[in-house]
Amino acid sequence: MAIEGRKERHGGRIRLGMVGGGNDAFIGGVHRIASRLDDKYVLIAGALSSTPEKAQESGEALGLAPDRTYDDFKKMAIREARLKDGIEAVSIVTPNHVHYAAAREFLKRGIHVICDKPLTSTLADAKKLVKLADKSDALFILTHNYTGYPMIRQARDMIMADDIGKIRVVQVEYPQDWLTVHQDFKQAEWRTDPARSGAGGSTGDIGTHAFNLASFVTNLELESLSADLQSFVEGRQVDDNAHVMLRFQGGARGMLWSSQVAPGNENALRLRIYGEKGGLEWSQEDPNYLWHTPFEEPKRLITRQGAGAGASAERMSRIPPGHPEGYLEGFANIYGEAAAAILAARNGDPCPEEVLYPTVEDGLKGVQFIDACVRSSARDAAWVKFA
Amino acid sequence: MAIEGRKERHGGRIRLGMVGGGNDAFIGGVHRIASRLDDKYVLIAGALSSTPEKAQESGEALGLAPDRTYDDFKKMAIREARLKDGIEAVSIVTPNHVHYAAAREFLKRGIHVICDKPLTSTLADAKKLVKLADKSDALFILTHNYTGYPMIRQARDMIMADDIGKIRVVQVEYPQDWLTVHQDFKQAEWRTDPARSGAGGSTGDIGTHAFNLASFVTNLELESLSADLQSFVEGRQVDDNAHVMLRFQGGARGMLWSSQVAPGNENALRLRIYGEKGGLEWSQEDPNYLWHTPFEEPKRLITRQGAGAGASAERMSRIPPGHPEGYLEGFANIYGEAAAAILAARNGDPCPEEVLYPTVEDGLKGVQFIDACVRSSARDAAWVKFA
Amino acid sequence: MAIEGRKERHGGRIRLGMVGGGNDAFIGGVHRIASRLDDKYVLIAGALSSTPEKAQESGEALGLAPDRTYDDFKKMAIREARLKDGIEAVSIVTPNHVHYAAAREFLKRGIHVICDKPLTSTLADAKKLVKLADKSDALFILTHNYTGYPMIRQARDMIMADDIGKIRVVQVEYPQDWLTVHQDFKQAEWRTDPARSGAGGSTGDIGTHAFNLASFVTNLELESLSADLQSFVEGRQVDDNAHVMLRFQGGARGMLWSSQVAPGNENALRLRIYGEKGGLEWSQEDPNYLWHTPFEEPKRLITRQGAGAGASAERMSRIPPGHPEGYLEGFANIYGEAAAAILAARNGDPCPEEVLYPTVEDGLKGVQFIDACVRSSARDAAWVKFA
Amino acid sequence: MAIEGRKERHGGRIRLGMVGGGNDAFIGGVHRIASRLDDKYVLIAGALSSTPEKAQESGEALGLAPDRTYDDFKKMAIREARLKDGIEAVSIVTPNHVHYAAAREFLKRGIHVICDKPLTSTLADAKKLVKLADKSDALFILTHNYTGYPMIRQARDMIMADDIGKIRVVQVEYPQDWLTVHQDFKQAEWRTDPARSGAGGSTGDIGTHAFNLASFVTNLELESLSADLQSFVEGRQVDDNAHVMLRFQGGARGMLWSSQVAPGNENALRLRIYGEKGGLEWSQEDPNYLWHTPFEEPKRLITRQGAGAGASAERMSRIPPGHPEGYLEGFANIYGEAAAAILAARNGDPCPEEVLYPTVEDGLKGVQFIDACVRSSARDAAWVKFA
Repeated sequence: MAIEGRKERHGGRIRLGMVGGGNDAFIGGVHRIASRLDDKYVLIAGALSSTPEKAQESGEALGLAPDRTYDDFKKMAIREARLKDGIEAVSIVTPNHVHYAAAREFLKRGIHVICDKPLTSTLADAKKLVKLADKSDALFILTHNYTGYPMIRQARDMIMADDIGKIRVVQVEYPQDWLTVHQDFKQAEWRTDPARSGAGGSTGDIGTHAFNLASFVTNLELESLSADLQSFVEGRQVDDNAHVMLRFQGGARGMLWSSQVAPGNENALRLRIYGEKGGLEWSQEDPNYLWHTPFEEPKRLITRQGAGAGASAERMSRIPPGHPEGYLEGFANIYGEAAAAILAARNGDPCPEEVLYPTVEDGLKGVQFIDACVRSSARDAAWVKFA
Repeated sequence: MAIEGRKERHGGRIRLGMVGGGNDAFIGGVHRIASRLDDKYVLIAGALSSTPEKAQESGEALGLAPDRTYDDFKKMAIREARLKDGIEAVSIVTPNHVHYAAAREFLKRGIHVICDKPLTSTLADAKKLVKLADKSDALFILTHNYTGYPMIRQARDMIMADDIGKIRVVQVEYPQDWLTVHQDFKQAEWRTDPARSGAGGSTGDIGTHAFNLASFVTNLELESLSADLQSFVEGRQVDDNAHVMLRFQGGARGMLWSSQVAPGNENALRLRIYGEKGGLEWSQEDPNYLWHTPFEEPKRLITRQGAGAGASAERMSRIPPGHPEGYLEGFANIYGEAAAAILAARNGDPCPEEVLYPTVEDGLKGVQFIDACVRSSARDAAWVKFA
Repeated sequence: MAIEGRKERHGGRIRLGMVGGGNDAFIGGVHRIASRLDDKYVLIAGALSSTPEKAQESGEALGLAPDRTYDDFKKMAIREARLKDGIEAVSIVTPNHVHYAAAREFLKRGIHVICDKPLTSTLADAKKLVKLADKSDALFILTHNYTGYPMIRQARDMIMADDIGKIRVVQVEYPQDWLTVHQDFKQAEWRTDPARSGAGGSTGDIGTHAFNLASFVTNLELESLSADLQSFVEGRQVDDNAHVMLRFQGGARGMLWSSQVAPGNENALRLRIYGEKGGLEWSQEDPNYLWHTPFEEPKRLITRQGAGAGASAERMSRIPPGHPEGYLEGFANIYGEAAAAILAARNGDPCPEEVLYPTVEDGLKGVQFIDACVRSSARDAAWVKFA
Repeated sequence: MAIEGRKERHGGRIRLGMVGGGNDAFIGGVHRIASRLDDKYVLIAGALSSTPEKAQESGEALGLAPDRTYDDFKKMAIREARLKDGIEAVSIVTPNHVHYAAAREFLKRGIHVICDKPLTSTLADAKKLVKLADKSDALFILTHNYTGYPMIRQARDMIMADDIGKIRVVQVEYPQDWLTVHQDFKQAEWRTDPARSGAGGSTGDIGTHAFNLASFVTNLELESLSADLQSFVEGRQVDDNAHVMLRFQGGARGMLWSSQVAPGNENALRLRIYGEKGGLEWSQEDPNYLWHTPFEEPKRLITRQGAGAGASAERMSRIPPGHPEGYLEGFANIYGEAAAAILAARNGDPCPEEVLYPTVEDGLKGVQFIDACVRSSARDAAWVKFA
């Protein structure tokens, strides 16, 4: 058990801006906490809303200087890029359909982008964004935050170390229940509007997380999928439940279930992976535990920073085992990885080898996943080649 | 909490025979314990093996009279049917491919049949058996034993009482790990031989249980399925992992996963059902618990005979909550239901209304399920109409 | 995973009688199921009630011959001892205050006694019974049934094999909730009457189980205890909650909590043992699991007959891991051990070394435990030397 | 489910200093994260170590200005009190024996004190500190951080609302395993040195947390206790395992177990409370859940911000249910309560009614608890009146 303190080093915080995340947003606040947790960022500018009054109010509430409070992300990008102490990075936390346009403005001015998922609301935008990001000197970090959980890193390392052998079966599911009935509050409203959210409902909002997580941990590439999407709630324009069968390159098979209509499931992302020598099981709602089930040996419960946990899990942890870290810490770990990459870039150093974050290419895969699900389902769940 | 004793009534035990279940069998011993638990049967005859010496040894070990020990089920059926104190019922616990021929001999002589699952090793046999059973005066009980668990009865009752509303999603899975590698001991050997086990591997051995359980609890009828079957272990002739998407009549959707290659899963049959008003979750390895998750209310954990458990769960229980009952008790409950039906038949009474057991028709559906999985998978997981 | 059948051998069943256990009893039915499960006993006589009519009705319900149905255990002992096919063993399942007198009649006639716990309702009776049993040729088996659980045997073996090192701390608890309010049904009524139950309430009914289990698993001898007993429900004459601190010979310390007024606890017997090298944790309500927590290694979950489980657990098991066995199977294991000992005695053989059951001396310790608790509590929880 | 954003208001952050918490400390880093999480504090000064070089290095690492980096808390208190933008509050995170002297310097200069637990290393110091705090205009907040968990607030509210009726039994335990063997790294070293830690070992380091938590949730006042303390590891000068029986005013009884030698227990603080109408159960390692067990109703699992959770739990939460919050968030909640109180004081407003934090009086009770445990154990676990 590591109980000694971790080295902190807070000089030279990264100057951060934010697009979206005004007063009544959800994920904006999460990004701000995540950026603050390890004191590697300082939020100094924002286009928190496209409604001028709300933008101003929100900026004031966050203690931003009035002249760093914008009501237009383009204006913000232009001005901040010129300022001597302008932002070095921007967090984009708007509804999905704004991601592309906003990211473009910052990327082309060399400002690093930390963007919420899914990457974009359309496949076309996603492809353009990949090109933009590739051309830009700036970094692009996608907050598939669940990849920041220490035990997810642990699982990935164990698979790379061949601890469970060649993978055969991947079971990933992400059920929620908050859309069991029609909801019309803000978060529900845009997430069920294809114009703002994209063609995927549960597939886009949470299925992409599930798919990304499975890919991240296993390092498997999806070959094709067969998807049966459903909108159970009357009048809903996007899927609220998705059953997907997966075939990976190399022969592994999988199932993915995402649902927003499964009462009793709050945010029950769960990943189970079985190989020729053993299995791994992890649940987001109890994230400090990882089951390792070597074939013909007793099940082992590995805990964050506990016995059996390795270097990656430790690098992603702040406090000893038994002191639970949660969603915000996992999210902050993505911000931590981003900070390491950004600081390296600032100093002209190569990004440290161990630093790992979801990229714009991962984002494209996520949008391709949504697209493939929708296309497959439209063809009665025919197999659709992936990417 | 019911801690008072249950009424027992042991007079007039049912005279039982057994086909299969010799010395080195597994499920035969389970059937014997199940028949004995509530003292409603007495085992008096057996064709425990088709090898004469082994049949004799096995009969002796069980204390059967030498003249009631047979090495041929047909001889047994003929003779027992003629005896004044001949068997009233027979348990068939052979490998699958023998079920049909054995059942036929007893059914046509009016001897009740209690048969292990799946019903038969071929669809043709299954259909013939249904006809035979329909024509016979004898009863046919299929030991889909998981339907005997008290909390499964509880779940079924709650669904019939509309406690979770119209069903939308059914998630059922049955992973095991014992065939993760090639195995050649007896139980593994015949179960992976299509000639004796049938065309299904995991689908036949455990997928049928999963399908039967989901059908039993929900009362939904399957409309079509799409199955992706795999044999991961080299040389294996039947599936050892199956991913199946389900569409039920009335619009509910489901996923079914059966696997024998998922390390760390011993016998992890698990059923989750979500409706418009709530959900139900049950796991076979911890069978005394049932989660009820009404939408927007706290989750409730109902325990066998505990608060919230109803009459069916109580009828299927022997001891108070907190005193765990398990697999054998659940199996014995099927024998209990069979006994109630057989005793009613003996007395010329109608079968009591509350008595419920898997029938030959359920068995046919199970074989149709296997057949549909195999056909769908052969056509690249195309949707196959069920039945 | 052992999935092959176990050898059964049913010839020469032990002829069994029963004292107590009439129609409305609880534990009598449990004993009968336990005796029947492995087909090693046949119940042929009973003094099931001291009320003649009820005795007769109860005997008839169980299918006993009228001339083997008694309304007086002494008459039964006298007559059965004389019969050529008289009972070889008797199960005593009356309220506690009858144990001594009943056991005496059978022991002195050489009939083996299987007796429910606690041994007697008074310490004086317990001491006399030890002497009687010592003098008798008959065996005395006390049904501290929880010692029959496979994973309890596993835990005991691991401690004897020094897997967790020298024991330091024992935490054992047995909370229930059924006496949270005043109850006056039969089971509650005699259990809260000191004349029939003895001086202990929760200490006698369940505390003795907890104490016995901790002693059985650890092989530690209690040195002294300090007990704080309470009767929370108004008018209750015996304790319904007990807090006890334990000091074992050799330096280990422990805590024991028994309660019948802890809402939400059905039968939550739980044992946790910590040594210099590791820990073991077991819970009766989920009895097929044993946690082994070696210091500075990942926690391991050992399952009944699963990887890591040893010979004793296997000897106490009937079916493969993942197929849960429960309370009745654990109880039946005590009957199985008793049968092994009785059959050895019948044949003049020594009792097989691996056979293990709670003895009359264990029963005396249980009554001494109750007595010590009551005395300590009367002296404001002063330390009381044990035995 | 509340998924909308929470109002943030970051203007006028509280100017914070820190005593202790240099480079290799543990709890200092925790306090810093906790202060940062909700952006209500800004750390601007520190006497992070009494070793000048280390103080300077540590300050630099945290980005403190050199002239606000001190190597002596007294100098810091004097200077900061004079500065126009001097600190308004100080976090004291030194080993226990320094708490008193450090707190004194700040309290007498009107600087609010946020102090780690236990309050002091001696009872005399604790009593003096209470007097000092009472005389001071400054606030004193003790970081019994576990009282900051949302579900702990929920439990407290439910008890105040009489949801479980009059309390009868309190079971609280806090086992760890990190001192199972002799350890000599820094955190272990001072914690097992009575001169720096105080007379209590496990009782002081974690037993006080357990006692405080039980008191906070139940609102019960301890009347007397009986403690059996032990040092299992050879040469250890303070207890590493403590068994304590509790008697509360009004008749409730309790048990408290603290241990640092229980392998497999990382930080397993657990609280169970049983009243006349129901029970509540909570475990720190899975802090987002609260079991409510109303008598004769199904168990209910209440989740943070989920159905059944009330206003206090919501006030202490940042993100929706299913998105786990953990130890740092709970700790941050104490900083949040402190901030609310400090800001009210800054503005001359009364402290908002709902604000709740552990006080210096609670700290005194904690030291009295340690003292009573040590005294009782020295007298062979005699009952010792509390306070």
